[in-house]
Amino acid sequence: MKFKIRTAKREDCKEIWRLIKELAVYVNEPEEVKISHEELERDGFCQNPFYECLVAEVAEENKSKEGFTVVGYALYFYTYSTWMGRTLYLEDLYVMPEFRGNGIGKSLLSSVAKVGKDKQCTRLQLSVLDWNTPARDFYAAKGALDLTESEGWHFIRFHGQSLDNLASGAATNP
Amino acid sequence: MKFKIRTAKREDCKEIWRLIKELAVYVNEPEEVKISHEELERDGFCQNPFYECLVAEVAEENKSKEGFTVVGYALYFYTYSTWMGRTLYLEDLYVMPEFRGNGIGKSLLSSVAKVGKDKQCTRLQLSVLDWNTPARDFYAAKGALDLTESEGWHFIRFHGQSLDNLASGAATNP
Repeated sequence: MKFKIRTAKREDCKEIWRLIKELAVYVNEPEEVKISHEELERDGFCQNPFYECLVAEVAEENKSKEGFTVVGYALYFYTYSTWMGRTLYLEDLYVMPEFRGNGIGKSLLSSVAKVGKDKQCTRLQLSVLDWNTPARDFYAAKGALDLTESEGWHFIRFHGQSLDNLASGAATNP
Repeated sequence: MKFKIRTAKREDCKEIWRLIKELAVYVNEPEEVKISHEELERDGFCQNPFYECLVAEVAEENKSKEGFTVVGYALYFYTYSTWMGRTLYLEDLYVMPEFRGNGIGKSLLSSVAKVGKDKQCTRLQLSVLDWNTPARDFYAAKGALDLTESEGWHFIRFHGQSLDNLASGAATNP
């Protein structure tokens, strides 16, 4: 299946919000999304944006059952370590179930790592819930370190070689 | 003791770096500070800064044994929750040992919370090491939730009333 990864535009916020809601359903917290797509527009498309986002888009002929072509997203921002400097933090990575198994998640992750490298970040960090074995395995298989092991939250980091590996994977984006 | 909390300027980066090194010694990791004060200047004072910082400054007559007047700092940045929106993340909060017990740490924390509220953040988050009982007690006493309980890292959050309480404390800055 053909898809492309691209930087989100303001006009994508409704679609990103739809996917955020889907992800919340997946983690059994459908009521927890308190922000609107208007807030996403305000906060991601202002002078000093609070986040950046990539989206995965499929061709019209591959659209979803409901007619959607934006089928995944990766939302991230920059944090800062007073020991290591610039860090990229991946807040959400999501691909619609019917589009999984096509390398879209891997491609989004690689693209995010690439953005981080381009911005001279030395780390990519994120967190996962402990019951989310597919996500934990996905990151672990790519060399991530699990920095926490309890309470349901796991703080995970890519750095050094594993970050380089991810970033170099971005170049093979289909 | 009289002190003031103010926004850091580019010229403060050498002093902030000195304090970052002191904090690293305190957590038994003196070799872990890999960034220079030049990187702090570059990353905090560019068009889209990677962090912001407040410093605590005492009057000349109260300077430290070594002659320093910048005696504490709070370094923070903005993160983003796709459920709750804007969040302020406090990376470091530090006061030189000889200046502790004067309310400087509390004042820095309140000032940071105030910045967060002014920026419409609904959360203030941070992490502490589990052996750092003084810090854990300090945050817990102010209503913070401990979101993790293992591996030495504790992810802590202020939101709602406890964040309001902190922010309103900023107004009583001596």
